Amino acid sequence: MPETPLDAALELYHQIADVSNSAALLEWDQETHMPPGAAESRAHQISTLRAIAHGLGTSDELAAALANLTSYADENPQNEVAVALAREGQRDFDKATRLPVEFVQRQAVAAARAKNTWRTARENDSFAEFADDLRTVLDLAREQAELLGYREHIYDALLDLYEPGATKAQLDAVFGDLRNQLVPIVENLSPRLDDRDKLIHQHFDPAAQWKLGESLISEIGYDFSRGRQDKSAHPFCTHFSTTDVRITTRIDADFFSPGFFGTLHETGHGLYEQGVRSELERTPLASGTSLGVHESQSRLWENLIGRSRPFVEFMMPRLRAAFPEALGETDAASFHRAVNAVAPSLIRVEADEVTYNLHVMLRYELECELLEERLPVTDLPERWNAVMGEYLGIQPTSDADGVLQDIHWSMGAFGYFPTYAIGNLMASQFYDAAARDLGNLPEQVRQGEFAPLRDWLRKHIHQYGRMQTADDLLGTVTGSGLDARPWLEYIRAKYSDLYEVDL
Amino acid sequence: MPETPLDAALELYHQIADVSNSAALLEWDQETHMPPGAAESRAHQISTLRAIAHGLGTSDELAAALANLTSYADENPQNEVAVALAREGQRDFDKATRLPVEFVQRQAVAAARAKNTWRTARENDSFAEFADDLRTVLDLAREQAELLGYREHIYDALLDLYEPGATKAQLDAVFGDLRNQLVPIVENLSPRLDDRDKLIHQHFDPAAQWKLGESLISEIGYDFSRGRQDKSAHPFCTHFSTTDVRITTRIDADFFSPGFFGTLHETGHGLYEQGVRSELERTPLASGTSLGVHESQSRLWENLIGRSRPFVEFMMPRLRAAFPEALGETDAASFHRAVNAVAPSLIRVEADEVTYNLHVMLRYELECELLEERLPVTDLPERWNAVMGEYLGIQPTSDADGVLQDIHWSMGAFGYFPTYAIGNLMASQFYDAAARDLGNLPEQVRQGEFAPLRDWLRKHIHQYGRMQTADDLLGTVTGSGLDARPWLEYIRAKYSDLYEVDL
Repeated sequence: MPETPLDAALELYHQIADVSNSAALLEWDQETHMPPGAAESRAHQISTLRAIAHGLGTSDELAAALANLTSYADENPQNEVAVALAREGQRDFDKATRLPVEFVQRQAVAAARAKNTWRTARENDSFAEFADDLRTVLDLAREQAELLGYREHIYDALLDLYEPGATKAQLDAVFGDLRNQLVPIVENLSPRLDDRDKLIHQHFDPAAQWKLGESLISEIGYDFSRGRQDKSAHPFCTHFSTTDVRITTRIDADFFSPGFFGTLHETGHGLYEQGVRSELERTPLASGTSLGVHESQSRLWENLIGRSRPFVEFMMPRLRAAFPEALGETDAASFHRAVNAVAPSLIRVEADEVTYNLHVMLRYELECELLEERLPVTDLPERWNAVMGEYLGIQPTSDADGVLQDIHWSMGAFGYFPTYAIGNLMASQFYDAAARDLGNLPEQVRQGEFAPLRDWLRKHIHQYGRMQTADDLLGTVTGSGLDARPWLEYIRAKYSDLYEVDL
Repeated sequence: MPETPLDAALELYHQIADVSNSAALLEWDQETHMPPGAAESRAHQISTLRAIAHGLGTSDELAAALANLTSYADENPQNEVAVALAREGQRDFDKATRLPVEFVQRQAVAAARAKNTWRTARENDSFAEFADDLRTVLDLAREQAELLGYREHIYDALLDLYEPGATKAQLDAVFGDLRNQLVPIVENLSPRLDDRDKLIHQHFDPAAQWKLGESLISEIGYDFSRGRQDKSAHPFCTHFSTTDVRITTRIDADFFSPGFFGTLHETGHGLYEQGVRSELERTPLASGTSLGVHESQSRLWENLIGRSRPFVEFMMPRLRAAFPEALGETDAASFHRAVNAVAPSLIRVEADEVTYNLHVMLRYELECELLEERLPVTDLPERWNAVMGEYLGIQPTSDADGVLQDIHWSMGAFGYFPTYAIGNLMASQFYDAAARDLGNLPEQVRQGEFAPLRDWLRKHIHQYGRMQTADDLLGTVTGSGLDARPWLEYIRAKYSDLYEVDL
């Protein structure tokens, strides 16, 4: 018999975690190693495991264990695991039980169909082909939001799925500020664009790229005894325990950035999951606390470290040695400029650090308008192009390069996009806090000393998993809520220098 | 609502299959890709999935569905799937329910401990260190046999786990004949041994070995769109559906055989699983019908085809091209002799085709004596060495190279070894039947035309999965029960020729 209500709840959570983590391994395998003929059988297997996990996660037994745990946590507020597990367990239970199985199936069927329609519509460059399905998934998203419930705004219910506790009101304030300051920066930079990035559009031997990445992230602290790196069409990070955190990378033989910065990006996610306390293993707490915080870790390593001048100086000798033909004669200043070239572009996933957040805010604006029914689906492409012009000064000439470029909406994932921008902003907030604590962080990076920063992140962020909410974590670590100013300051300073302009 | 009792049973079996196949993927990953640090979390995940599958496989709901299915099958004997599923479903249900959970756990704990003890004992070359644990797992095996039940002999209960329907009485008859004829053959060959196999103990570039194997098995018919090949310490074949059948191989840079014949061996297993009818997918019928029949398929491709003169003639130009330094000047006759060198040796897994069955029969004899308590555990090493001398004319000078060489007994797997010899014998029985049907099979092999044999195996054996029992299958295909004579004839003819002696 379990000794305490915590032990009793843990027994159930261990089982749920084992099943969910197994499903995640099946998904990893699907993207990396599975033979193509296995698609249908794999879909059945994942669906069966997810259904079993859902059954366990919504059972009367779990409800009773959670009620006992909550009383126990109230009586033992010093037991941090009990308190956090009661809170996050209840959150997961509510999310899982508020959506009837009938609704979940209806939404899954609609999303699967919409995803297919979206693919064809994008191939045919025809938003009209996608409009009906988009309307359906939008209606379902609204229904989902009502089932889940919210206090102020329908958007909050969906946003909370990805960024617990965040609200539209909060985002409107932060994003408003961000947009108002960022659009003029981009306007200011646009006339100054040149071909400084041609350096990174050369041939880079894929095997050398792979080797360079692997040795670098090993030094940064990605633990290969508790993880591995594979290739996949779309890079991602997944985990099946704190001792099994896997990343994937996509290598482009003729473009340096996807492989190198993609690897750093996924490593940032991976370090977060590898850094979670082992005592949280096999519980819902053993995972990053929100998508925004997760993205802050990937962006911190990809951009704030990886695209910084000190880091480029540290890497330059290795880069010259790994790619003698492409970079044998390149100095750090030129390479630093090349990997930080700014250019308003149509495609979000290819956007540079400066313009990226505007791509996100465009989507945020539009999905709010759609959900509120202020914008009819039929008018979406026109509105997309108009806001794109307003934010970035360019407009797509096709739906495929515009409103149809992302898969997210077809899957019904409204409320997801903002987490990318939240992550960018938090990255700067966390970086500044680390830099205050660590003394000369840029000099450490220049010397290739990554342990101080990695250990700082582990101590202040990673180890807690979901024990702290994103808001609490940000407040504790930075003394502030979500704030665009540190990121704007970082962008102004860095790009004023890189483009010799006063931003 | 399901339309028939068959549909109702299938719904439950689909779920069980999905969970079991997921567990199998976790095990595959453990042996091929999993980072070492994940061992403990992975053990939990596999154990949880296996427990869920066991729970589903012993549920009252399944019992009721099986009862309905059985009546339905009795009323619809023309529905072959219903009849086979009722039979095999009942078999699985009985096996799963006759062992109380308490016993299964006790046995699992004992086996885990014995496996560790065995490893250390083997490292220390000390059977005495292993004796107590072996006694414990033996006692548990006897208890297991009594729980499972048997008609004639305690051994039958355990043998039936791996080779359904087989009995000690049957094996004693077949193996007795085999031993009586095989020991003189080995005695006759032993004085003639030479160093003809030095050809295959040279350097063979591992990448070239891998490439050669991959292209060969693709031609033989292993379908890479429904399977893949990876590296692992111990080669194996596993499957998660008929559309996802995976094999692994171990490459030795200085020895040709493990990589090449290991790949052919696992391909034989893989072709069996890939050949099962797709309509049996997600049921207990979608799998090889017994370990003996499975081994017959691997041995057929490894030995009867792979080590045949026509096959060597077909491969020789490729072998010379792939390994110009080692084999550039080698002719087919020499290579054929090299890959068929006979030599009594101490280690089963390294034994040649002729002596291998004697290694198996040694173990069969001894595990029968142990289970019947005719042989005290203390006397096992002495008895091992004596029978080894009797069968093969050689004796180990250490426990590590003798009684401690195999992991099987430490895991409580008594009754498993015979399936290796059964497979060898069946391979010849099936080969002869195929050769009768296919006309000039050796000439087809010499031309690299593998489709006729592969299609014949699929049509007569593979497609049925567990729809036919091993006995029925063997009877239908060969017109005979298990019989050592075809294999003995094959060995006599082949090795009389290779060693220029009248065997």
